Amino acid sequence: MAEGKFITFEGADGSGKTTQLKIIKEFLENSGYKVVETREPGATAIGEKIREILLHETEKISDNCEMFLFLADRAEHIERLIKPAIECGKIVLCDRHTDSTIAYQGYGRGKNKEILRKLNDIAVNGLIPDLTLLFDVTIETAQNRVGKDKDRMESAGREFFERVRNGYLELQKENPERIKLINANNSIETVTKDTKDIIIKMLEKDRRINVSGV
Amino acid sequence: MAEGKFITFEGADGSGKTTQLKIIKEFLENSGYKVVETREPGATAIGEKIREILLHETEKISDNCEMFLFLADRAEHIERLIKPAIECGKIVLCDRHTDSTIAYQGYGRGKNKEILRKLNDIAVNGLIPDLTLLFDVTIETAQNRVGKDKDRMESAGREFFERVRNGYLELQKENPERIKLINANNSIETVTKDTKDIIIKMLEKDRRINVSGV
Repeated sequence: MAEGKFITFEGADGSGKTTQLKIIKEFLENSGYKVVETREPGATAIGEKIREILLHETEKISDNCEMFLFLADRAEHIERLIKPAIECGKIVLCDRHTDSTIAYQGYGRGKNKEILRKLNDIAVNGLIPDLTLLFDVTIETAQNRVGKDKDRMESAGREFFERVRNGYLELQKENPERIKLINANNSIETVTKDTKDIIIKMLEKDRRINVSGV
Repeated sequence: MAEGKFITFEGADGSGKTTQLKIIKEFLENSGYKVVETREPGATAIGEKIREILLHETEKISDNCEMFLFLADRAEHIERLIKPAIECGKIVLCDRHTDSTIAYQGYGRGKNKEILRKLNDIAVNGLIPDLTLLFDVTIETAQNRVGKDKDRMESAGREFFERVRNGYLELQKENPERIKLINANNSIETVTKDTKDIIIKMLEKDRRINVSGV
């Protein structure tokens, strides 16, 4: 049986990561791989209940409570969905994961990054992505793509966007083997080609097999 | 305005801690204090939803998810209920808190105690109990008191009980200033007297005032 893989898709809203995830999913399935598409939070039965608390609670949730709820969701996600899928040879494509926590909560909101890293480590229980695709965009590209949801991004603010973007780029520099940078300001077709190239390279390197459909 | 206090009640099921908490609450109220009685999990609106997930979920929750849910509840409890109550001069009596985590998850279930301590530290955000009352009982006393719930304790097992009890005693040795040991094998009246003596001593020492009703 083929060895499973864990690939995470990271970047700002409007970076096109979710679009690329769906294209890559189809590409890998057409190449004969079994693929699981997932996201955080809310991918498991318990995660869904946690997501309800996070999204539908009218009362303000305290910062630490919110953080622990996200971690609870992640721990369940890893244990019940991601790990079993990888163990039976599937490729897991996950829309946002641990790097989002560091980029948004750490760099964006100024929370202690070392503590966040340790909490992430506990939540993932040793399971690190084999590959993380970082879709990097300028705020102008992101705003154009987000379109009607522009208000949301405007309200978060340009400075926040820049802190998060800078955070992602720092993470990439710290983990050049795992995190691959993609210039997502380019056209969808170009971004797809760059993304496929990186994934094919990883699969060929690790398995010494050719991926069809290249 | 009087300075608030945070007092936690710890010990095995059947140690009589909840009974003593209610007696002490009445005693302090009769002495003119404003008292808040609380417990974990489920004391806040969001905590109640978390408690529902923890107690009513038919699917098995992964260990780490469960742990983070307890921490989310604790963080919210501290921020929304305990801290505000103390800040406005109340005495908070809490049935189980951080020491339960170390005694049950750490000593009882063998989870990494250093990690649990760090997670507790994050959840409580600097708020340490002014006083912790440890109601220590032998398994025989506990079993007699638990009565009709005896099955529950039997199923958890004698060894588990002893590990938890030993864990609590270790914690007391490590924190002799904060954690006061009470021999809870004695009669309710004797245990109440010992508990009151400790609380009065703390209140008199800290405030240089006399507590009435002694």
